[in-house]
Amino acid sequence: MHKMLKIATMMGALLGAALPVMAQEAAPSAEAVSGGTSYILNTLLFLIGGFLVMWMAAGFAMLEAGLVRSKNVSMQSLKNIALYSVAGLMFWVTGYNLMYTDVSSWIGTFGIYSMQPVGSADLEANYSIASDWFFQMVFCATTASIVSGTLAERIKFWPFLIFVALLTGFLYPITGSWEWGEGWLDQRGFSDFAGSTLVHSVGGWAALAGAIFLGPRLGRYVNGKLQVFPGSSIPLATLGTFILWLGWFGFNGASQLAMGTIGDVSDVSKIFVNTNMAAAGGVVTVIILLRLLYKKIDVTMVLNGALAGLVSITAEPLAPSVGASVLIGAVGGVIVVFAVPMLDKLKIDDVVGAIPVHLFAGIWGTLIVAVNTQSEVNGVTLSVGEQLGVQALGVISIGAFTFIISSIIWIAMKYTIGLRPSEEDEMKGMDITEVGVEAYPEFK
Amino acid sequence: MHKMLKIATMMGALLGAALPVMAQEAAPSAEAVSGGTSYILNTLLFLIGGFLVMWMAAGFAMLEAGLVRSKNVSMQSLKNIALYSVAGLMFWVTGYNLMYTDVSSWIGTFGIYSMQPVGSADLEANYSIASDWFFQMVFCATTASIVSGTLAERIKFWPFLIFVALLTGFLYPITGSWEWGEGWLDQRGFSDFAGSTLVHSVGGWAALAGAIFLGPRLGRYVNGKLQVFPGSSIPLATLGTFILWLGWFGFNGASQLAMGTIGDVSDVSKIFVNTNMAAAGGVVTVIILLRLLYKKIDVTMVLNGALAGLVSITAEPLAPSVGASVLIGAVGGVIVVFAVPMLDKLKIDDVVGAIPVHLFAGIWGTLIVAVNTQSEVNGVTLSVGEQLGVQALGVISIGAFTFIISSIIWIAMKYTIGLRPSEEDEMKGMDITEVGVEAYPEFK
Amino acid sequence: MHKMLKIATMMGALLGAALPVMAQEAAPSAEAVSGGTSYILNTLLFLIGGFLVMWMAAGFAMLEAGLVRSKNVSMQSLKNIALYSVAGLMFWVTGYNLMYTDVSSWIGTFGIYSMQPVGSADLEANYSIASDWFFQMVFCATTASIVSGTLAERIKFWPFLIFVALLTGFLYPITGSWEWGEGWLDQRGFSDFAGSTLVHSVGGWAALAGAIFLGPRLGRYVNGKLQVFPGSSIPLATLGTFILWLGWFGFNGASQLAMGTIGDVSDVSKIFVNTNMAAAGGVVTVIILLRLLYKKIDVTMVLNGALAGLVSITAEPLAPSVGASVLIGAVGGVIVVFAVPMLDKLKIDDVVGAIPVHLFAGIWGTLIVAVNTQSEVNGVTLSVGEQLGVQALGVISIGAFTFIISSIIWIAMKYTIGLRPSEEDEMKGMDITEVGVEAYPEFK
Repeated sequence: MHKMLKIATMMGALLGAALPVMAQEAAPSAEAVSGGTSYILNTLLFLIGGFLVMWMAAGFAMLEAGLVRSKNVSMQSLKNIALYSVAGLMFWVTGYNLMYTDVSSWIGTFGIYSMQPVGSADLEANYSIASDWFFQMVFCATTASIVSGTLAERIKFWPFLIFVALLTGFLYPITGSWEWGEGWLDQRGFSDFAGSTLVHSVGGWAALAGAIFLGPRLGRYVNGKLQVFPGSSIPLATLGTFILWLGWFGFNGASQLAMGTIGDVSDVSKIFVNTNMAAAGGVVTVIILLRLLYKKIDVTMVLNGALAGLVSITAEPLAPSVGASVLIGAVGGVIVVFAVPMLDKLKIDDVVGAIPVHLFAGIWGTLIVAVNTQSEVNGVTLSVGEQLGVQALGVISIGAFTFIISSIIWIAMKYTIGLRPSEEDEMKGMDITEVGVEAYPEFK
Repeated sequence: MHKMLKIATMMGALLGAALPVMAQEAAPSAEAVSGGTSYILNTLLFLIGGFLVMWMAAGFAMLEAGLVRSKNVSMQSLKNIALYSVAGLMFWVTGYNLMYTDVSSWIGTFGIYSMQPVGSADLEANYSIASDWFFQMVFCATTASIVSGTLAERIKFWPFLIFVALLTGFLYPITGSWEWGEGWLDQRGFSDFAGSTLVHSVGGWAALAGAIFLGPRLGRYVNGKLQVFPGSSIPLATLGTFILWLGWFGFNGASQLAMGTIGDVSDVSKIFVNTNMAAAGGVVTVIILLRLLYKKIDVTMVLNGALAGLVSITAEPLAPSVGASVLIGAVGGVIVVFAVPMLDKLKIDDVVGAIPVHLFAGIWGTLIVAVNTQSEVNGVTLSVGEQLGVQALGVISIGAFTFIISSIIWIAMKYTIGLRPSEEDEMKGMDITEVGVEAYPEFK
Repeated sequence: MHKMLKIATMMGALLGAALPVMAQEAAPSAEAVSGGTSYILNTLLFLIGGFLVMWMAAGFAMLEAGLVRSKNVSMQSLKNIALYSVAGLMFWVTGYNLMYTDVSSWIGTFGIYSMQPVGSADLEANYSIASDWFFQMVFCATTASIVSGTLAERIKFWPFLIFVALLTGFLYPITGSWEWGEGWLDQRGFSDFAGSTLVHSVGGWAALAGAIFLGPRLGRYVNGKLQVFPGSSIPLATLGTFILWLGWFGFNGASQLAMGTIGDVSDVSKIFVNTNMAAAGGVVTVIILLRLLYKKIDVTMVLNGALAGLVSITAEPLAPSVGASVLIGAVGGVIVVFAVPMLDKLKIDDVVGAIPVHLFAGIWGTLIVAVNTQSEVNGVTLSVGEQLGVQALGVISIGAFTFIISSIIWIAMKYTIGLRPSEEDEMKGMDITEVGVEAYPEFK
């Protein structure tokens, strides 16, 4: 009886709540309610952000499939679905614990991530650890996606996959532990909100090392002159860019790591706005520069302008004003326009332009943080100059570590299993030689 | 007293949790807890709806890339990523404030949108203003996407982009202010839930004016006979339609503007159902009509049937029953089947069929609202006839404004910078002449 | 001290709520608050899960468009948008009530789903019934998508659409009612969390029956030897697979049916992780097996490995550990590698490999549930052996029903309206003969 009465009352209350559009519910007594709700909302942010970033794996796949020649499109598709899978497995086997568990300034612990029943760790964190794991895993995979674009069309499948395993299982987690694992860089006040350096530059450094030791595609530079190898499908590259742009709302937005309070969800909203506007700034800047410099507007540069804008704002998407975000993204666009031909002059063959986009714009984005945010270290707020120094320290230390270890791995594989297909196989294209499936068998 | 104390303590805890991140809020009163949760949920609706509508930009890009000839696919890709970027920038520079700030019946105020710290405006609105800005911005971009499809393959890049800037910075926001800015049309009881008129018809009128002053593509109508210019990729057009369909759940669903109560989230759910079923009604109707009229089932018409169904339900996706929604969408499908050939008879060259889909179905959707919803004006509920009159007034006034101003802009550009490439360039395709990058260089 | 005590109490309350997976919370003092919030969050899960699963319709469309020959790509696009629409309409007209309303062990009631104002049914369920309807509808559509892939390139449009109407309006809902409608299989303890059997195997059985009675494509098996018919676009097939992988987070995650408690949202998180890792396990297993067996790594097999991993984990994505999930998905990959050539030996022509992926891996996923979860029947928990028996009973009974009724429908149509185009039309491709629109008119 009593229970029935209670339910009836509740029903009435619920209906009452439903009636006026905004219905401020009666004040709750149990704190658990608000605690429970913020736990749920924080977790939900990780899940939504996670699936949006997972979707970026498809974005990279489409961008790269569109920008390689048709004889390597099946291979590029294969590499992308393989790298996303391997990244997940390696982040499970070693990556997560190396990055986040008991980090002793320089490295976490070795061991498989083991999913626990909901317990005190979750409640203390105020979100499901599993949701955070998922979110961190897709970030790890993003780093590997960056490498696959630069090295396309001339790296064999297996050495690529081995590198991905080492990058996602060890390299990315170790430098990640320095900052997001609360290691030594974090303690010095380094600031990288969503990973201009930790994700994008790391991918970029690994890709740069690979491009150097792998060498350019056959026929790319003939007598010092660049040969244009046009991409096979511009609409797929465009689709890939739109997917990445969409996914970046999760990438930056959910890096707020919480939306269980008014403050947090409002910050996520601002991050959405700034993220979008930095990309827009990159696009429009590239369009104007191309018009001034070349008359024609190479759409692939414009796509990279969007991505460079996104990478640039990733280190601090919250603090800048909208206008500052547009400018930060615009500089990313400038970087693309000038760095793409510069790399070609250096005969570094970056098939999709990932080094300018992820490495150079990533450095820019990390350094400019100093103007917008100053960390507190041991209770003292850094000056802009000090912050700039710490940002540079992070860029250099993470860059040096990633570039050196990557180089060692690339060299070791080069002189053992080999990195490249035979010249004949490269000319045929890896779709025939390694995949056995042509991407567009009916169109020749 | 005891209860109040407890609440105060809890408030402290909540505030403490919020402080480090965003700190601004003044201590809220008792409602703030439930207020907090509903604030978060309302904001989340804008964010989810926003990224879904942002994704529609990719949908339009794919739909149009698939329906133009391969010699203009790179250009169409470029236009779409450019228009989305410019729309964001213009909505920031002028659009948002023209549409929403201190609207004096006919127009808001000039000025850049400036993102504020979370403050009383947010708390009063019970959502993050930034999240709403993001949501409104992607709507503005949608309007521009509609124009790009109709005018494809024969408008130069720069006049197109200038028009987009004027449309998204001024035209769309001004007519938008009349209704969603609570201007004169809103005061008269005009009802347009998610923008059959404010978004879709406005885009359609602008496109119609452009199509008239631009003229048809070279060789489209030879001796009064229509020449079929088949689209280059049906699967991309199909993908674009599926993306738009998906995005429309955000477009209509989040136009509920709140999900912080049982009533609101239940309404969002119904909007999802009705939106889906109107599209399904459009698809099946077009299939049946094509079977009866032509035997063969032109898949591009079916795709437009889905979109026409979606546009038709957009003005009122909540009030109708499921069956009524199917019917409303079905009429949208009928419109497509008959309006597409009609436009060709008038020698209005609408490359992707955006005028039937967005303008004609938009008008239909806006008028049929009268049957399902009647507004209250000065405390009196309108009759169905009165509502129909107000709906027609909205359709005509917004249509006249948009069509006339658009025409003036098109004419001004036509006789100054010019709208079309040279005949030779148009025959070659703009991918070569303006972009310098072919969409499918290996397939000829 | 006081504060610490309070926090301890709160933690206890939270833990209590979290402990049992389905956590019926102890009556909180203000029911309305948690009631309202959990209602909203539960509903939101259905909406997010729903739009993700809706997006899978696009995934199937792209996968199939990529794997058929270019002469049937427009048709495949048409079939996919048509089947999604028809599934929605049929689930509205008969499906939902047959599956969920007053199920008398074997079947629900006939009648159109009528969307009600928010009322006691919603409040009792603690979510919006409309949101659940949307979520269930997209599951129904998924079943139909499975069929379209297997039967591609040789079934006429209308018999296909009629079959889809019968499958989604009657067959799927009837077997669905046995388990998710709480019919006889559910009462016996059958367990199928998100539909390895109810969705995927049902689609697979219907496809298998169709493939048998339809026969293989012309020229597929010549003198007992398989002729390779390569798919027209590997990147589109890859895109489709990524879309499906993304959508599966909604498919499995939202099948938790609630996220209004700490326990539920944490379970959703674990489901995300396990779902992802099963797919990764499928991918890597197929890659290794192909390397060992064939040297070359057929990317279409790898894509199917991901999908088989996803289907395998669908029957129980919550209970297994991460490692077990990887293994469950890996076995799905093994099934693909061996079952695809086996079907060809049986001259069963499955264009996209949907029978191995959805039927065989679906059976595997359903049986292995017994190891990870044992149901309680009449208060007694089944042994692993008993559970395995019940799982087999479900597989067999649902399989027999679906296969037999599907066969009857296919045979009935075969000898009345006919299933296949004329040989001449099939050679030309259905894009020309039935759609009248070529998919890639400029590339020949």
